Amino acid sequence: MSGLILGLVSSVIAIIVVLLLIRTVLSKEEGTDVMKKIARQIQIGASTFLRREYIYISIVVVVIAIAMLFAKQHFGYTSAVSFLWGAIVSGAAGLIGMSIATRANARTTYAAKESGMKGALNIAISGGAVMGLSVVGIALLGLVILLFAFGVFKETDLDVFFRKLSSINAYAMGASLFALFARSGGGIYTKGADMGADLVGKVEAGIPEDDPRNPAVIADNVGDNVGDIAGLGADLLESYIESMIASMVLAVSVVSLGTMMLAAEELQEVKNIIEIILSIAAAGIVSSILGVMFVKVAARKNPQGALLGGTYVAAVLTMILAAVIIWKMGAPFGNYGKWGLFWSLVSGVVSGIIIGFVSELYTSNSYRPVRRLAESCETGPAIGVVGGLSLGMKSVFIPIIAIVFAIIVSSASAGILGIGIASFGMLVTTGMIVSVDSYGPIADNAGGIAEMSHLPAEVRGVTDHLDSVGNTTAAIGKGFAIGSAAYAAIGLLAAYIVSANLAVETLAISSIKVLSGLLIGGMLPFLFSSLLFEAVKKEAFAMVEEVRRQFREIPGIMEGKGEPDSKTCVDIATKGAIKGMLFPGAIAILTPLVIGILFGPVTLAGTLIGAIISGIIIGIQYANSGGGMDNAKKYIEEGNYGGKGSQAHKAAVVGDTVGDPMKDTVGPSINILIKLMSVIALVLVPMIKGLTGIIWNLF
Amino acid sequence: MSGLILGLVSSVIAIIVVLLLIRTVLSKEEGTDVMKKIARQIQIGASTFLRREYIYISIVVVVIAIAMLFAKQHFGYTSAVSFLWGAIVSGAAGLIGMSIATRANARTTYAAKESGMKGALNIAISGGAVMGLSVVGIALLGLVILLFAFGVFKETDLDVFFRKLSSINAYAMGASLFALFARSGGGIYTKGADMGADLVGKVEAGIPEDDPRNPAVIADNVGDNVGDIAGLGADLLESYIESMIASMVLAVSVVSLGTMMLAAEELQEVKNIIEIILSIAAAGIVSSILGVMFVKVAARKNPQGALLGGTYVAAVLTMILAAVIIWKMGAPFGNYGKWGLFWSLVSGVVSGIIIGFVSELYTSNSYRPVRRLAESCETGPAIGVVGGLSLGMKSVFIPIIAIVFAIIVSSASAGILGIGIASFGMLVTTGMIVSVDSYGPIADNAGGIAEMSHLPAEVRGVTDHLDSVGNTTAAIGKGFAIGSAAYAAIGLLAAYIVSANLAVETLAISSIKVLSGLLIGGMLPFLFSSLLFEAVKKEAFAMVEEVRRQFREIPGIMEGKGEPDSKTCVDIATKGAIKGMLFPGAIAILTPLVIGILFGPVTLAGTLIGAIISGIIIGIQYANSGGGMDNAKKYIEEGNYGGKGSQAHKAAVVGDTVGDPMKDTVGPSINILIKLMSVIALVLVPMIKGLTGIIWNLF
Repeated sequence: MSGLILGLVSSVIAIIVVLLLIRTVLSKEEGTDVMKKIARQIQIGASTFLRREYIYISIVVVVIAIAMLFAKQHFGYTSAVSFLWGAIVSGAAGLIGMSIATRANARTTYAAKESGMKGALNIAISGGAVMGLSVVGIALLGLVILLFAFGVFKETDLDVFFRKLSSINAYAMGASLFALFARSGGGIYTKGADMGADLVGKVEAGIPEDDPRNPAVIADNVGDNVGDIAGLGADLLESYIESMIASMVLAVSVVSLGTMMLAAEELQEVKNIIEIILSIAAAGIVSSILGVMFVKVAARKNPQGALLGGTYVAAVLTMILAAVIIWKMGAPFGNYGKWGLFWSLVSGVVSGIIIGFVSELYTSNSYRPVRRLAESCETGPAIGVVGGLSLGMKSVFIPIIAIVFAIIVSSASAGILGIGIASFGMLVTTGMIVSVDSYGPIADNAGGIAEMSHLPAEVRGVTDHLDSVGNTTAAIGKGFAIGSAAYAAIGLLAAYIVSANLAVETLAISSIKVLSGLLIGGMLPFLFSSLLFEAVKKEAFAMVEEVRRQFREIPGIMEGKGEPDSKTCVDIATKGAIKGMLFPGAIAILTPLVIGILFGPVTLAGTLIGAIISGIIIGIQYANSGGGMDNAKKYIEEGNYGGKGSQAHKAAVVGDTVGDPMKDTVGPSINILIKLMSVIALVLVPMIKGLTGIIWNLF
Repeated sequence: MSGLILGLVSSVIAIIVVLLLIRTVLSKEEGTDVMKKIARQIQIGASTFLRREYIYISIVVVVIAIAMLFAKQHFGYTSAVSFLWGAIVSGAAGLIGMSIATRANARTTYAAKESGMKGALNIAISGGAVMGLSVVGIALLGLVILLFAFGVFKETDLDVFFRKLSSINAYAMGASLFALFARSGGGIYTKGADMGADLVGKVEAGIPEDDPRNPAVIADNVGDNVGDIAGLGADLLESYIESMIASMVLAVSVVSLGTMMLAAEELQEVKNIIEIILSIAAAGIVSSILGVMFVKVAARKNPQGALLGGTYVAAVLTMILAAVIIWKMGAPFGNYGKWGLFWSLVSGVVSGIIIGFVSELYTSNSYRPVRRLAESCETGPAIGVVGGLSLGMKSVFIPIIAIVFAIIVSSASAGILGIGIASFGMLVTTGMIVSVDSYGPIADNAGGIAEMSHLPAEVRGVTDHLDSVGNTTAAIGKGFAIGSAAYAAIGLLAAYIVSANLAVETLAISSIKVLSGLLIGGMLPFLFSSLLFEAVKKEAFAMVEEVRRQFREIPGIMEGKGEPDSKTCVDIATKGAIKGMLFPGAIAILTPLVIGILFGPVTLAGTLIGAIISGIIIGIQYANSGGGMDNAKKYIEEGNYGGKGSQAHKAAVVGDTVGDPMKDTVGPSINILIKLMSVIALVLVPMIKGLTGIIWNLF
């Protein structure tokens, strides 16, 4: 029971730390009346959106849960409960993280004004850590509660053990479903608002970003919170849970060598592996808390160093603790030695770092790719956009090779379980990663508030610096999110194949069933992307019309005398996001079911792999194309190739606007698409196992 | 022997018709001195490029042929000879087609001036048919010659029969290698020149397209010929050969039910299937000749109707003849009935038509997608580009479903051979398809010459009309090219798996070896695309600099008094294309070899499938994104959303420029990438068969 207890204790500690951090943040002064007013608008906008989004998600969740109860010969009520629980956990973490983040931003601005860099960084990272530690604390606590509640560890009957363990798969599905809507809804919201605000404000009216006269600016700021904080948190929460769930299922298969029939001593081996996983998760949480503390202490001198330092502290500490845990608790399993788990963990971490570094290389304006992209903007927007697309495409090469090698190393070390553990390795310090990632939008918003409340330039200087530090860490974090999604999805897929007991000889790529699945699956991320692009486009379109209308109709708005109507803009963004997320969401949810019934479980396996492969690739491409174009614009704004207002700058603004929905809406949503489809397939196993597929019966 | 004789006779007839058409074209008047001068510049530019390109390709071809001779324990000299022969055949068809096409364009203009629509269409389609019928006539003749020369049909020893048949695989590889360079080199040439010409001419200097003051216009016109005529011809020539070769190899496997051991009566069955394939090819050639004649006769009234009518005549006639052939010559084979081949053919043709229709739906401005895209250009270039990308992504859905269903139907009808036959079904009227496709650029160039020689508006009216008709048929033709490439590649892959004798249980998608291959393969088209985008960007960049320099330095150039220096622009395009094609070409050629040696034949199979899947998808996406953005611009130019010069128009021009390299350089080259990699793998079989792969030995 030691792993369960460690998991329980560490997650409770995380939640206590979260409460302390919340108290710290809320105890700070929020600033002048103007600042308070703006902050309130952002809070209200964010919580309005969240409320509406949650209502829609709840409906979908409840419908699915009821459907599961109706099909209870396949799923049993435990699956429905796990599913609901997963959705609740994800929703709770998002709600807590977001409400604190939207309260931390004005306080960060005020601290920047009153006590400079250190105080501001302190609040921003505290706000971020509320999200980060909520994610891991609540997720792990939820999992441990399910393991206790279903009495999984007490079970000695082999069949029942596996059935109970499998019903927890739906926990990941609940979290994943929530994440999909949070990411795609939030992503549409934030980019529709952002593009709308920029297209009329910056491009047409020639007023700066975050100018209070622009009525879409509040919606843009709300978007930063709902997209980048709530969305990212839900995304990584999902990956975190999934990597653990997949590893647990795969532990069974690797110990029983694929037969799914466990002898008593083998059952003990499996339980031991699960205990080790939970213990390492606990180590990751404790290390993340220490990492956050490191940032707070080290903040004095150099924020960039503090944030990166904290991340490294958490990662290294986790690896040391993991080694100790495996040394103490580990034992040979299946055909593999005691240290197999450790090398799998390491391969995941190393490839994650490589992917993060490549993101940095292709998206930071310290390196050649972005500088060359900035140069090509001199020839106009078309060449700039082509250059940005091509930068992203090229950036896929090394990450894919890194993933392939991690898969090879981890499966050589611990068989198919190794792949699950590698994915868990990337995610074990999720607490720290999400803290740093959520810090970014808080700093960004703090800057916006400084601008809108006309604070002195040196305050804006502090917040700008904090923001630019956030951009660098965000690029690395994005790489991690994609890499971990890739692994989590592959781990889930392996768990699906094992659970559905698909025979190796049926899964050949030369089989028409598999090939059909690969083709359909490969196409899905493209269809899904196009729907999200359309949704962003539609919202941006509506936003542009509205801002143009206000500039035209509200008297004195451009002189700063008329009051811009932010509420209508927030409303447009909310409606656009809700409407836009439903259809792609339905595709993600229904595809595994439809393919499973029409074509059977083998074609579904092919579909999943097809989707995972094209999804990973375009996910990476979009993140880096978008990031590269964003930073090429910033590089020009720093005075290169003619600086602000030059031809090159105008071209780069177009490129940046094209890249925005790629990196912040479509790319991240694809991460979730591939995970969600895989986890739904895993949950559907009891229902579709053994089906031959209606289509194949026709021929 | 009847199939061989029919193949020989029909291909000789095709070549005779080509000679007659050449005489017809060359007998026409070329026009005024100005027209002659411009036509001469285009001819010289095209032949200069072709000469240089052929030199580089020859070097690569000879090096590979020598390498094959050095590894003659694996390949034997017959493979090297087949390979050289394939390259020569492709080169010869390209050379003949292009030199006549560049001679037909001024003559088309003059005919438009002297005898109006009918005369002009007559010359343009004759010029196109020279390319179209050369492709099929020379390709089939080449194949028949090899079958005779190697005495394949005389062979009664089973082993030797299969070895001889396999050595002909290299014939397809030679054609494929040639096509890769022709397509990518031509594509870089044409789009670099086009973008360069437009960016300075239309966007900066505000002079119309094809304005003779623009020194890059000649290069642009040369590009239409080398990219759209020679490139497309080589592409379809390759698919045509490959679909036949793959079907022949698969015939062996389907008759022997995968054992590769033939009894004497089974050998007879295989020979009979090959005879049927050759007979149907002969039927396709005869039908294509009749289709071309139909166009010439029907041209009087309505050119659109004439071209489409000719295409339908050829297709329907071929199907009727195929049914007769199968009725007379067919027999049950393997587990399948006599009519299995026919249904496979039909499934290929039907899905090809569906793909063509979807291309039309998404790229013609008669339908909603392009009109909505034009509308979104009103919000500026960024939203326009996003809309164009998303249009292409959405357009992938139906074609993939169509391909999946064709694969299901054809393999249900004739096993794995059915897939080869379906691909052959799409390509059997290649003669007609290439004729119509090559007609387009001739009409386009004719318009350019009319503009540059300041001919009266009504002449330009005729050529514009001919051109716009060409655009519609070109969209359908592009759909066909992609669809057929997809099938041909899948057919080759099946032939590879069968030839390499890979056991079904080793090919499971759950195997790390396969999964690694799928990931690497899926990434390759992205890497390849990015290199081509870079090459186009670089050439366009150089072109822009040069045109700007000439506008600045040549006195009186803008007043039409100074002579623009076209030769330097042609030179820049030629160098850019040659330099740009080498590295991506090397990747395509070397990947199968490197993966085969490092990872072994199983991972190579995974790599091929990964590349085929992502290649098909982004191939379709690029073709339709590019086509959609092009026609959205044209739709606006027709006076919608503000017409020429409006904000929407400027945005659409940016979108069109982004789409140009997608549809004309990268998309088509990816078609060839996937075919080339597959055919190289097939040829490499004797060398890599049974290797375990260096990497897997490490773990």
